[in-house]
Amino acid sequence: MTTEKIDGVSVTTQANVYFDGKCVSHGITFADGTKKSVGVVLPATLTFNTGAPEIMECVAGSCEYKLAGTDAWVKSSAGEKFSVPGNSKFDIRVTEAYHYICHFG
Amino acid sequence: MTTEKIDGVSVTTQANVYFDGKCVSHGITFADGTKKSVGVVLPATLTFNTGAPEIMECVAGSCEYKLAGTDAWVKSSAGEKFSVPGNSKFDIRVTEAYHYICHFG
Repeated sequence: MTTEKIDGVSVTTQANVYFDGKCVSHGITFADGTKKSVGVVLPATLTFNTGAPEIMECVAGSCEYKLAGTDAWVKSSAGEKFSVPGNSKFDIRVTEAYHYICHFG
Repeated sequence: MTTEKIDGVSVTTQANVYFDGKCVSHGITFADGTKKSVGVVLPATLTFNTGAPEIMECVAGSCEYKLAGTDAWVKSSAGEKFSVPGNSKFDIRVTEAYHYICHFG
């Protein structure tokens, strides 16, 4: 089941634009101060670095990802999640827009 | 003064992707049912059609816009708004990312 909407949040109006727009996200903040982001990766192959650990939840479309230190591309589709350690990186390969929620920590 | 965040809303997790990603937005819904969107237009010259009337509020960056039936390109920067009639269109020319809130109706 996919998360179609997130209630009761504050949204940061200025988007985060990465890789010349191949990834665009908006930050959201919950009442308890928890921060997440909602975003989309357009068709591309990119490498993301993490600070905090991240859980990437797909809400539409799909991607293939490859975590640092692994050789396997793994598919992640709507309703699925994958975890990325902190201070690490992952490759992501997208052929149809990958819509996601990024959960931190 | 720019609107940096919008509180107490529900955000639609799937982005709206227009013009191959030159415009990306996320829909937000207020407690009273009012809908708006927060988005960004990346460097490009595009033509948008309106259904409902729209007020475009710039929160970062800038654009030049030209309403249907006019010949003048008008600049709109952070903190500024412009109105577009319903069932109309406007051209938008962006050289640095134009971050906006779209108010409907």
